[in-house]
Amino acid sequence: MFIHRHKVQFYETDLMGIVHHSNYLRFYEEARVAWAHAHGLLEYQKPGSASHFAVYETQVKHIKPTFFGDDLEIDVQGRTEGNRIVFQYRLRGRDNEVCSVAKTVHVPLGPDLKLLRLPANMKAAMEKEQWTETWL
Amino acid sequence: MFIHRHKVQFYETDLMGIVHHSNYLRFYEEARVAWAHAHGLLEYQKPGSASHFAVYETQVKHIKPTFFGDDLEIDVQGRTEGNRIVFQYRLRGRDNEVCSVAKTVHVPLGPDLKLLRLPANMKAAMEKEQWTETWL
Amino acid sequence: MFIHRHKVQFYETDLMGIVHHSNYLRFYEEARVAWAHAHGLLEYQKPGSASHFAVYETQVKHIKPTFFGDDLEIDVQGRTEGNRIVFQYRLRGRDNEVCSVAKTVHVPLGPDLKLLRLPANMKAAMEKEQWTETWL
Amino acid sequence: MFIHRHKVQFYETDLMGIVHHSNYLRFYEEARVAWAHAHGLLEYQKPGSASHFAVYETQVKHIKPTFFGDDLEIDVQGRTEGNRIVFQYRLRGRDNEVCSVAKTVHVPLGPDLKLLRLPANMKAAMEKEQWTETWL
Repeated sequence: MFIHRHKVQFYETDLMGIVHHSNYLRFYEEARVAWAHAHGLLEYQKPGSASHFAVYETQVKHIKPTFFGDDLEIDVQGRTEGNRIVFQYRLRGRDNEVCSVAKTVHVPLGPDLKLLRLPANMKAAMEKEQWTETWL
Repeated sequence: MFIHRHKVQFYETDLMGIVHHSNYLRFYEEARVAWAHAHGLLEYQKPGSASHFAVYETQVKHIKPTFFGDDLEIDVQGRTEGNRIVFQYRLRGRDNEVCSVAKTVHVPLGPDLKLLRLPANMKAAMEKEQWTETWL
Repeated sequence: MFIHRHKVQFYETDLMGIVHHSNYLRFYEEARVAWAHAHGLLEYQKPGSASHFAVYETQVKHIKPTFFGDDLEIDVQGRTEGNRIVFQYRLRGRDNEVCSVAKTVHVPLGPDLKLLRLPANMKAAMEKEQWTETWL
Repeated sequence: MFIHRHKVQFYETDLMGIVHHSNYLRFYEEARVAWAHAHGLLEYQKPGSASHFAVYETQVKHIKPTFFGDDLEIDVQGRTEGNRIVFQYRLRGRDNEVCSVAKTVHVPLGPDLKLLRLPANMKAAMEKEQWTETWL
């Protein structure tokens, strides 16, 4: 399974001393882009390319907090659902404990923000993926 | 119904020319805090107070993009579900069109990040609220 | 003098319990855009317009910290220096005390990120400004 | 010389298609923390430790823009100036070209936000540093 690593930065914390919840969507975006690059989809999210995706829906559950300096590991899996692509994420922090699980749904958009068909290479990459179980 | 206003800033956009999706969780937090203050819960989210809440779950749907300079209006409603509080949001942009709807679930936490009982004043404020319909 | 107001949000704090220093550049950008709009420069920073400016240099001094919920007031003044525009800022927090002063320098850029000449309306707006003293 | 690497993320861009200038202060903070850890100052910026530093002043020059996906390299050097510590940074992007140079000044602060004396281990680490030239 694809794993993305992120070291928690000082600027990602809030006054409760933990990572602010909005940053998890940024970590999951990082993980998604890294997944795409690792699958040869180098144009993923590049402006003007046929591989731009808009975020249609996000769902995040927070189980444990994460802290400044933590070395996070994010498991990523993806699959297609009709013309949409769906990613799920499992974020592990200290002692390898699961701190958050999430799901994001995306639709392919042109530079004019109009809906496109799912690019063939994204579809092919998705079909090779293994979606073993649902985390959220 | 409580309405919170937010003017979209340049630094909230991304290279697609629209507001980055992670910022919606920040707008919804702004709206939630403003709701609490408007309901006399001035200690809401203040560190060391008995009114700190952790974000347990978020769910956001993106229907239309929003842009630099847009004057957003965010409708907010809240209610209790056992020991949790639940907020829902409806974000309106240009031409008053609904651009996003969302729901967030919160649990009361002490400074040591341990679960607390729901404070009485929060419970009372919530009971006066009208949750007319579910938006998400 | 032009004053911009900003209420400090929870998501703008860090684990020291104060506003993270990177956010001051965002507050100053907000103030600069509001200044431009108040001076009739409605196209300021709009993509594709002749009024886009790149940030060439920033300098920020932090005198006192600011906190969640603070109602900040930011004084703004601008002037031209050759083909550049320069803004200075004075940020006041609790008890009206000055918490930060700053200066930013900008150059006009086209959509291709090439240097442009200073637009006439920006030049005219700047000449009407009063730069009473230097704060930083 | 110490070098910190940062891959530019999608969420760090703005509607001009480049990295937003406020994020450079975040990159420089990342580089500073990494420098401290590499010099054995593991407590650097940890809350409650004797090694917390407040940002007193920042100065950033932007020479060339940086873009989504860029692999940035940030050179870092530090030295003491009386009770303060000063860092300078040189950020290189595509084709190894210098895109930004910067300087930040810091003062040691206790958890009560009161000034402390410079910790001995920080002073020792700084004295071993080579400050070859001034970049900004």
